[in-house]
Amino acid sequence: MTEIQTDDARRGDSGQLNLASIGTMFVGGRIVETDTVSGSPDGDILSINGNSGHIAAYPMYVRYMVPAGQIKVPVTLIHGGQLSGAIYETTPDGRMGWDEYFVRNGFPVYVPDQVGRARSGYDASVIHKVKLGELPPTELANFTAWAQETAWPLFRFGPRLGDPFPDTKFPVEAVDNLSRSLVIGGPLPSPDPNFAALAGLADKLDGTVLLGHSESSSYPVEAALLNPDKVKAIVTIEGCGLELTPQQFATIRHIPILTLWGDHVPDVPIMGMLDSQVYMDMGEAFIINAKKAGLNATFLPLPTIGMRGNSHMVMCDTNNLDVADVIIDWIEANVKP
Amino acid sequence: MTEIQTDDARRGDSGQLNLASIGTMFVGGRIVETDTVSGSPDGDILSINGNSGHIAAYPMYVRYMVPAGQIKVPVTLIHGGQLSGAIYETTPDGRMGWDEYFVRNGFPVYVPDQVGRARSGYDASVIHKVKLGELPPTELANFTAWAQETAWPLFRFGPRLGDPFPDTKFPVEAVDNLSRSLVIGGPLPSPDPNFAALAGLADKLDGTVLLGHSESSSYPVEAALLNPDKVKAIVTIEGCGLELTPQQFATIRHIPILTLWGDHVPDVPIMGMLDSQVYMDMGEAFIINAKKAGLNATFLPLPTIGMRGNSHMVMCDTNNLDVADVIIDWIEANVKP
Repeated sequence: MTEIQTDDARRGDSGQLNLASIGTMFVGGRIVETDTVSGSPDGDILSINGNSGHIAAYPMYVRYMVPAGQIKVPVTLIHGGQLSGAIYETTPDGRMGWDEYFVRNGFPVYVPDQVGRARSGYDASVIHKVKLGELPPTELANFTAWAQETAWPLFRFGPRLGDPFPDTKFPVEAVDNLSRSLVIGGPLPSPDPNFAALAGLADKLDGTVLLGHSESSSYPVEAALLNPDKVKAIVTIEGCGLELTPQQFATIRHIPILTLWGDHVPDVPIMGMLDSQVYMDMGEAFIINAKKAGLNATFLPLPTIGMRGNSHMVMCDTNNLDVADVIIDWIEANVKP
Repeated sequence: MTEIQTDDARRGDSGQLNLASIGTMFVGGRIVETDTVSGSPDGDILSINGNSGHIAAYPMYVRYMVPAGQIKVPVTLIHGGQLSGAIYETTPDGRMGWDEYFVRNGFPVYVPDQVGRARSGYDASVIHKVKLGELPPTELANFTAWAQETAWPLFRFGPRLGDPFPDTKFPVEAVDNLSRSLVIGGPLPSPDPNFAALAGLADKLDGTVLLGHSESSSYPVEAALLNPDKVKAIVTIEGCGLELTPQQFATIRHIPILTLWGDHVPDVPIMGMLDSQVYMDMGEAFIINAKKAGLNATFLPLPTIGMRGNSHMVMCDTNNLDVADVIIDWIEANVKP
């Protein structure tokens, strides 16, 4: 991991893609009875049971591809805030995403939509209760859609919209397509059902590498605490500043951890409550503490291996497959088959 | 089309899947300035532009697969109400969905999420305005989640939840997975942006068969009225009772149309405003009028060709690939390459 991978032959991105299987599964999603299937006291116009009925609470949609031929350890790619699994598919400027690239490198790939978002669905009970007058409007969630003015510096394309860092690796000409890929996500109950859903997915797969990004960067650790035997490795991109107890570290002591960060962390304005440098420092502290607890843990800002200009959205950057190679090399060196 | 296809050899579902390409695109989604990026007057906690900023209005997410080798006309599979494109992927009981089956039969396949839903995102402006006190709670949409009590008879698995028709083809043991695949969808501006998005997709593909289901059964016709040269054929499943003017029929006169219906239409209770028999009669009237206007139009209730027990969710039924064969045979007989 001391030099950048530039093995184009490994990419195979000009040839056909041969899959053993492709498909969709849902994990989690308990069937529960609700009394707010709609925002009308009589229920939906099609309802035959008034405003009550059985629905699935907090399922997780997962799309998968398994490559033909000999396969490696399954890899699960979890998206970050305001995004869906689409961010791991084609990049905003139309290049190959990480999902296909990992498959082309022999890994079965699983791409969920976070619970409560996109194809995983959303529990509209609070919206319906406000419509029914049972809750005040202030109880509605903030379904923020990140404006380009916010996303540009937050994702560290440059200091302000339209002003990229000269060496940015984000394809800034495609920023409108990034906006098209943003989705709303609302609040979830505690504990976050994503943790149990991912732990359940790891069970179904009989072991998987979990990779989280930004908002979801801590999810692999949370899932591993629930199901330590089936999480084979943890990759966190730009985040995971969790503070674990010694006992928690002991639970996941056998699981290798890699934390990656891009470039330009000190070069953007502090965004409201979010100072990227503070988050990066918390991420480094997590890895330092993990090492002290005896874990195989690595903190890797990409500039330290000569990769400059990467944004917060490394899976979209023009060198996204180089970054994937760093992760693949680390998996192959650190994860037992 | 006078006998059921049972050519298992054509399925090829036991072998590997060879793709020329797989990926994601967004169609539509104009970049606009909004003043309600959040439900807080100061904007999102990360906002650097208050509550204003540029977002993408009404994009459409489209996932595609192109088979390796010689390819046929592209087919676009549009999902129905409360659903996402996931319904065309794996069936609720874990069998091959129509997306993969059409690909295995040589068709490039495009699966959108309807605008305003799932991976296409949702415009939360109204929710934010209610939270801000700018609109009353009654303006909130009804984000109905169909309860199993409603879905079971509505989708004609049987007369009531837990009571299937003896010959039903829906895999009723997997009804919980169907619930897991339901997502919320809110109201859209008029004209429905799905029509222009699909017309734009047809342009990008330089021609496609458009297949709609239930809520989206009329979308192919609406898109064809906007882009008649690039819609190669229209398949509507369980719906499309549009009343077109003579001029509108003339615009799409060259486009072949197939309308399919399942079984047991008269055997379920009337659901609120929805009487399936009325909708089926409207669908038949559309085809009768299309024929009078000189179109190549076919109305095909599956029982008339000996296929019994199909539900509203034919793409999930245990004979879903037999139904796909009916559609494929019709495309090959009626669509010019």
